[in-house]
Amino acid sequence: MSDYQHVSEVLAHYVRAADRRDGRAMSALFLPEAEVVINYVNAGMTERIGVLNGPDAIGDAVATMMKPHPPMGWSHHTTQDHLIYIDGDTATIDAQFVVFNTLGTPRPAGGWPPGILGLQGTVTPIEAGYYRTELRRVDGQWLIRRHQIDHDLPMALPG
Amino acid sequence: MSDYQHVSEVLAHYVRAADRRDGRAMSALFLPEAEVVINYVNAGMTERIGVLNGPDAIGDAVATMMKPHPPMGWSHHTTQDHLIYIDGDTATIDAQFVVFNTLGTPRPAGGWPPGILGLQGTVTPIEAGYYRTELRRVDGQWLIRRHQIDHDLPMALPG
Amino acid sequence: MSDYQHVSEVLAHYVRAADRRDGRAMSALFLPEAEVVINYVNAGMTERIGVLNGPDAIGDAVATMMKPHPPMGWSHHTTQDHLIYIDGDTATIDAQFVVFNTLGTPRPAGGWPPGILGLQGTVTPIEAGYYRTELRRVDGQWLIRRHQIDHDLPMALPG
Repeated sequence: MSDYQHVSEVLAHYVRAADRRDGRAMSALFLPEAEVVINYVNAGMTERIGVLNGPDAIGDAVATMMKPHPPMGWSHHTTQDHLIYIDGDTATIDAQFVVFNTLGTPRPAGGWPPGILGLQGTVTPIEAGYYRTELRRVDGQWLIRRHQIDHDLPMALPG
Repeated sequence: MSDYQHVSEVLAHYVRAADRRDGRAMSALFLPEAEVVINYVNAGMTERIGVLNGPDAIGDAVATMMKPHPPMGWSHHTTQDHLIYIDGDTATIDAQFVVFNTLGTPRPAGGWPPGILGLQGTVTPIEAGYYRTELRRVDGQWLIRRHQIDHDLPMALPG
Repeated sequence: MSDYQHVSEVLAHYVRAADRRDGRAMSALFLPEAEVVINYVNAGMTERIGVLNGPDAIGDAVATMMKPHPPMGWSHHTTQDHLIYIDGDTATIDAQFVVFNTLGTPRPAGGWPPGILGLQGTVTPIEAGYYRTELRRVDGQWLIRRHQIDHDLPMALPG
């Protein structure tokens, strides 16, 4: 397995940790000195939404900042079109992301009505943007030093 | 071309066979002893929907279980964020998938009205989940031994 | 970095140039003798929409044929499931594409109402199809010789 694949798959693990709301798996992808920077980018103008420092805060955010899945609900953070640069023990990824929520329709108590066949529910794209990720190789493992999330959409914050 | 790319592209051929409803091309991706396992996964709880045994049944299912495209309609089974492990002549892929239906708008008999420009129709995400795929290399070719489809959405079945 | 990755990332640069409406970056991906062929494919029947010849016309089209983003709007041309063949200094890519528009909701003058939290806006898939791309390696750089866009949806044209 090449460095290119190792680096690319860090994001594949990242999106699975996000969708499972698995703070421990998320933390394990980050270096002790890591930060996650969350931006809103409006036509090239960048507005800072927030910063998370260290793997504990980053893992906690998965549990506390991300909405839990509703019953019969799930999400897919998906990434596309990676641009990857590797220079020795450092690497960067520039990726597009699109997030989908899925929500199953509960089976009616009397069963599905006649004529209803196939998958029942909705798939809704809710977020998109770019991930800009910096990684370092430590003891043979690629870990995230800095992960920047550039959202297309503005965020309403509490308070 | 590396094993990694060969393995990854098996899914790229799989999704094209699905979207073309091409049972023969689908069958050709599977080993004689292959099975396709179709699940509904609700918050980590797995419910078995069905199993297909052997390339003939798998190819037939593309023609008989998948709805034909309507006029001016097509679909895209897309995959993202592959996790690939290769060990000698065996390999596994864990991938996300999202399926989109597309449906063109027919051109009105009198032509498009003034002011209507660009692509005309809809793109609708209808399914999502995970593919978990096991492959074996036989005579230099990577083929699917077991393909598990973990749907996010529940399925209404006939009867 | 392998040829496979170089070739694959040409599309990653292509989609970014399209989404930034950056004609200069788009032109730079194409050979002097390049052409872009735009088709509508309806159930396997191909209808020619248009052809662009040369990097200048291709770059200009990004500025003149693609709608500018509205305020708080952006797009993501995403690609999936690349099939890549490389033969010496020539290569082909067959990729699926899905285009999403994103549109942020403006913050109300009095701030977000109570209870409104998280990202505010919409993500809408608007186009899908296949890219069929031919590349050549010139002086060590992979550039596009021919780029075919096979749209799923029909197009309303001016006039």
